[in-house]
Amino acid sequence: MDIRLVVPVLYSEALAEKARLEYQACASAGVNLSLVCVANGTNSIESEYDLALAQPEVMRLVQEAEAEGIDACVITCFGDPGAAGAKELVSIPVIGEGEAAICMAGLLGGRFAIMITQEELFPMMRKMARLVGMEHRLASVRAAGAGVLDFSLDCVPRVVDEAERAVRDDGAEVIVMGCTGSGGDMVPKIEEALKQRLGAYVPVIDPVLAAMKLAEGLVATGMSHSKVAYPTPPAARREYHFNAG
Amino acid sequence: MDIRLVVPVLYSEALAEKARLEYQACASAGVNLSLVCVANGTNSIESEYDLALAQPEVMRLVQEAEAEGIDACVITCFGDPGAAGAKELVSIPVIGEGEAAICMAGLLGGRFAIMITQEELFPMMRKMARLVGMEHRLASVRAAGAGVLDFSLDCVPRVVDEAERAVRDDGAEVIVMGCTGSGGDMVPKIEEALKQRLGAYVPVIDPVLAAMKLAEGLVATGMSHSKVAYPTPPAARREYHFNAG
Amino acid sequence: MDIRLVVPVLYSEALAEKARLEYQACASAGVNLSLVCVANGTNSIESEYDLALAQPEVMRLVQEAEAEGIDACVITCFGDPGAAGAKELVSIPVIGEGEAAICMAGLLGGRFAIMITQEELFPMMRKMARLVGMEHRLASVRAAGAGVLDFSLDCVPRVVDEAERAVRDDGAEVIVMGCTGSGGDMVPKIEEALKQRLGAYVPVIDPVLAAMKLAEGLVATGMSHSKVAYPTPPAARREYHFNAG
Amino acid sequence: MDIRLVVPVLYSEALAEKARLEYQACASAGVNLSLVCVANGTNSIESEYDLALAQPEVMRLVQEAEAEGIDACVITCFGDPGAAGAKELVSIPVIGEGEAAICMAGLLGGRFAIMITQEELFPMMRKMARLVGMEHRLASVRAAGAGVLDFSLDCVPRVVDEAERAVRDDGAEVIVMGCTGSGGDMVPKIEEALKQRLGAYVPVIDPVLAAMKLAEGLVATGMSHSKVAYPTPPAARREYHFNAG
Amino acid sequence: MDIRLVVPVLYSEALAEKARLEYQACASAGVNLSLVCVANGTNSIESEYDLALAQPEVMRLVQEAEAEGIDACVITCFGDPGAAGAKELVSIPVIGEGEAAICMAGLLGGRFAIMITQEELFPMMRKMARLVGMEHRLASVRAAGAGVLDFSLDCVPRVVDEAERAVRDDGAEVIVMGCTGSGGDMVPKIEEALKQRLGAYVPVIDPVLAAMKLAEGLVATGMSHSKVAYPTPPAARREYHFNAG
Amino acid sequence: MDIRLVVPVLYSEALAEKARLEYQACASAGVNLSLVCVANGTNSIESEYDLALAQPEVMRLVQEAEAEGIDACVITCFGDPGAAGAKELVSIPVIGEGEAAICMAGLLGGRFAIMITQEELFPMMRKMARLVGMEHRLASVRAAGAGVLDFSLDCVPRVVDEAERAVRDDGAEVIVMGCTGSGGDMVPKIEEALKQRLGAYVPVIDPVLAAMKLAEGLVATGMSHSKVAYPTPPAARREYHFNAG
Repeated sequence: MDIRLVVPVLYSEALAEKARLEYQACASAGVNLSLVCVANGTNSIESEYDLALAQPEVMRLVQEAEAEGIDACVITCFGDPGAAGAKELVSIPVIGEGEAAICMAGLLGGRFAIMITQEELFPMMRKMARLVGMEHRLASVRAAGAGVLDFSLDCVPRVVDEAERAVRDDGAEVIVMGCTGSGGDMVPKIEEALKQRLGAYVPVIDPVLAAMKLAEGLVATGMSHSKVAYPTPPAARREYHFNAG
Repeated sequence: MDIRLVVPVLYSEALAEKARLEYQACASAGVNLSLVCVANGTNSIESEYDLALAQPEVMRLVQEAEAEGIDACVITCFGDPGAAGAKELVSIPVIGEGEAAICMAGLLGGRFAIMITQEELFPMMRKMARLVGMEHRLASVRAAGAGVLDFSLDCVPRVVDEAERAVRDDGAEVIVMGCTGSGGDMVPKIEEALKQRLGAYVPVIDPVLAAMKLAEGLVATGMSHSKVAYPTPPAARREYHFNAG
Repeated sequence: MDIRLVVPVLYSEALAEKARLEYQACASAGVNLSLVCVANGTNSIESEYDLALAQPEVMRLVQEAEAEGIDACVITCFGDPGAAGAKELVSIPVIGEGEAAICMAGLLGGRFAIMITQEELFPMMRKMARLVGMEHRLASVRAAGAGVLDFSLDCVPRVVDEAERAVRDDGAEVIVMGCTGSGGDMVPKIEEALKQRLGAYVPVIDPVLAAMKLAEGLVATGMSHSKVAYPTPPAARREYHFNAG
Repeated sequence: MDIRLVVPVLYSEALAEKARLEYQACASAGVNLSLVCVANGTNSIESEYDLALAQPEVMRLVQEAEAEGIDACVITCFGDPGAAGAKELVSIPVIGEGEAAICMAGLLGGRFAIMITQEELFPMMRKMARLVGMEHRLASVRAAGAGVLDFSLDCVPRVVDEAERAVRDDGAEVIVMGCTGSGGDMVPKIEEALKQRLGAYVPVIDPVLAAMKLAEGLVATGMSHSKVAYPTPPAARREYHFNAG
Repeated sequence: MDIRLVVPVLYSEALAEKARLEYQACASAGVNLSLVCVANGTNSIESEYDLALAQPEVMRLVQEAEAEGIDACVITCFGDPGAAGAKELVSIPVIGEGEAAICMAGLLGGRFAIMITQEELFPMMRKMARLVGMEHRLASVRAAGAGVLDFSLDCVPRVVDEAERAVRDDGAEVIVMGCTGSGGDMVPKIEEALKQRLGAYVPVIDPVLAAMKLAEGLVATGMSHSKVAYPTPPAARREYHFNAG
Repeated sequence: MDIRLVVPVLYSEALAEKARLEYQACASAGVNLSLVCVANGTNSIESEYDLALAQPEVMRLVQEAEAEGIDACVITCFGDPGAAGAKELVSIPVIGEGEAAICMAGLLGGRFAIMITQEELFPMMRKMARLVGMEHRLASVRAAGAGVLDFSLDCVPRVVDEAERAVRDDGAEVIVMGCTGSGGDMVPKIEEALKQRLGAYVPVIDPVLAAMKLAEGLVATGMSHSKVAYPTPPAARREYHFNAG
């Protein structure tokens, strides 16, 4: 099974290798992972503007992946840039980290909170929840107070504080990590600390794991997104006007 | 990975073996499946009454599974009988077919229709969608006009007719099979016929596949349901009053 | 008019007599009350698990009540265990305390809070509100910090504190007592204290009163639940597979 | 127990006596009914305009009723004209037929349809359902095709046709009669005919019965609307500016 | 373009002239403003009761305006008294300040808070938001702690405090002034102070401006409210029963 | 007042001049219109893919407009491509035709239908309604059965047929034209024909008029979108990574 990671930010060794490692760590046996980054875009996704800039190339990269025979694509960003358009272009499964994580949150509890880096992203996160039709189950959005590129293990204590408040004060039953690059080590640490404080296990959903397992599951069962929901754009037009990349 | 199928109806060779085969057919390599049926209950689940009767034993069987070291349980019925109570009792993942199928539907399109055997089940299906918080995306419920125990490949043409109407008239983008026992062969046939008629692929979600893949994904990643959402019932009481079975 | 109280917990003199007295105190002239308890179940209902355990007998007891010529049944628990299945089995009105109380709350104000014993019950209460279609009017759930079996007049001060916060901080306009066994004396005391603090009357809904008056009203007018919403389960199956009790 | 019927249309012997008889027929023993009509208003309520015209006098009549020692008021119109303002003015229960009927519908099934005289009233009915917070359970509004003042037993066949369609095509599980003056005889006839056609009992809610029983229940239990939801208007202003009647 | 301001409170020189000035200040060139007050009503609108009292005359005044050839009416009160009935009576645009302000709020951000004078008005504001179908975007209602008639520039600091809390604590992205008479000077001061504190521009919507610009826009484009949504009441009845004024 | 039309499709004389004429026809005196087209993109917007491709340039063109001192931008497409990102980049009002039209629909009636060219666009239209928070008032989406580029006055009869069905069968009270290029002549013709058939005026909202009047109103009053809802993206990153155009 070939799964392609489509990274919607400019290549940097640190970031791309980190993503590859995180995904590799949770891939099932027999999954071949490959990774591509957009050539035009930004260093991180922290706004609607960044999302929009990344979309043309993400769609093109997904289309290329299908042409190469790849079985499924994962867009490695919680904001799912280009996911809707990419689903129109191809038949193979395309999974965004955000929709995957929120989908899993819905399965593991009734109400969830999204943990994000900065308060400026609150409206975007609420819009994300609305787009996937789960806004009524969004207990709150909370911020760890660090920029996306500075988000690291040092932020764990603050994340745990905010996650505890999300559970105690906002009625969250599940925590969704809304920032990628948060790393494979981070989520277990948060989950453990949270369990200590609350005396009960609260799932902390790593979008990487959620996206990987849903992508694998779709490929394994032959399921993909609806072409009535995401109809193929008229072919002729698609051929020769694609000069945005 | 050991996954236990908890069948919430009385054992019959036909039905239990059919369930085992369907699940076996889509299990990943390395998954050991086992199957138990309730000893008290009904031959099929076609009402709230049937759901309620099945619940005490389903919960007990899930509890036993965890005690035996099983990694996850799947309740093999779209109505998810006993799922909430079972999640309270155990820490291992417990997946109902209904919540799994609706969760996958939400990922593959915006609005879904549930296909069920009889019109009498419409209110129960709407309640299912409400319970998992997706009623606002339920385009319609439609019936194939056969009893649960008579549901077979002969019903395919009627299901395809109703599914086509769900897409064309009700705005469904995904079809969710709300009846188990519909068989592993059935869904691909429906999907294919529907594609012929609509000129576009519409996912027809088999609850068996959805439940199996989500269960595997949860075990593989160590995720499970929130114990804040499903707190463990007070232990003392649980010990000695469990005499309903 | 004969009304049967179906108590979904194991018989204890204290608890059963208390329920009988509370209901007797608010029954209209000409109402004959009788009371039955489940023989299998738990001492109190504090989880989804407890709810599920109680359901098979509750349904059977309601069916027996109809066979005896009883005019209506009240399930004396806020969680309404077995109510949906029982409504399928019979034509006489079946009222759960929870649905009755929330229904009255909707009539007396725009937004309500549910007062419950323990925080562990918050998710179950939110699910209750969702099931009766009133989650969007649920201002909050608040806990008095006592176990169900320890809930007594001693808890009044804490309940009043939490109710005041529900009104001032959460925007509740009506308080719904989510714990039975709270006693006939309790509610007037809470209402009075709350009026002192807020300078305005806020209804504190006693589920006992709500259920009793709705049951009486339905019997008096000949109304009952819809058999399209709660269709009778197929008769043959019902006859001989009912061996869960 | 003294209950005052506040009729929000101009007095006519036929109409007022009809209302009195319908309410008398379903009043419990010991209920004293009295009836007043507005002196300024219209002959029937068929628009938002009619509703608004009736409101000042309805509020004044309710205030007078409380001053006379009446225990509860029922506003005998599905549109509940003046109900919100009247609740602000008084402490005794004030029940509108519309809110009472929709409240009972929510108790007896999951989704309801409103049956009304003319299509022109559809938007007003949808607004009614939204105001009482139940729009998400409104399956449809359907019209019997007669003016409010021409609504009589002759309309039963058309009502039954439309009610059947509401159940079969729109997914209604309960029918709410949205037109008063439909008479005590009418509802049982509709219910019976509907049962014949559907093979199942579907409650047809008579707003008269619903309002009467809820009013009686509130008086019997000492409950009334929340004064936080309906705060008393500043007294001084109320004294001398009330010259709209 | 002739626009009529319909003031739903009793005439007082201070208040009527203030309204005229505020509207004049934001009217486009070529707009002729005229103003009428109700002759029966209250000095201010602070309750559902006040709203209801004002409605009959507001509707009559709007009808007169259309007869005089006026192009559009604005009802100068956030509670929109008589707006629905007036829309039924006439074909020219009728705009209430509340619906206009909430409509603009929806355009300028995702979630809004309503700033009002007193806490007693919270339920009425929530009902307003529900009526215009935007309750799900209402982040909170907050009170400046002054009576409507005492509301003045002195209240600005308190309003700014509450607006800041609405943004920081409640997740509001836009502030809607829910009290008229707040004055043309007030809103810019609040906006400026808020920008200082938050470091970002948050629109503070003045209902006067919102209503004026929407009224002008409708007249300029020939659009008006739907007569299917607001059908004309039966003419005959309207002629001779209108004696409430 | 300088308003810039940002056309998110490739320049063609026919289309660009048509847009300019339509907007010019409804601009108020004193409005200076200018128009720019994207240089990379597609000939029409008929998919999520097309929307995404247009976004980077739309955002850049809006940013340029602000730098030139333009007062407001209108994105001349119902899908509002790039609107969210553009609002982040600038402080001047940015209005998309879709959000403008849906906003006006909400003001003129309770429920609206969107009229679009092809059925393939139904899911995208439903998503549009969800994004602006009005999905609960969307009665239906209906298609005129023509490609976007073939949409012309010839389509009027089909549009009228579908609009009539939207009103009669789906409960729409307002029609929103979801396709631009529908032309200034078209909407009055549809409105007139619809009035003939229904016997009542139903507003048919032309997104051009709605967007133009809202843009003018915002500029006239100094209002703009919330910078808490649309925070400015971090400046440094914005400088040098914008190479997607």
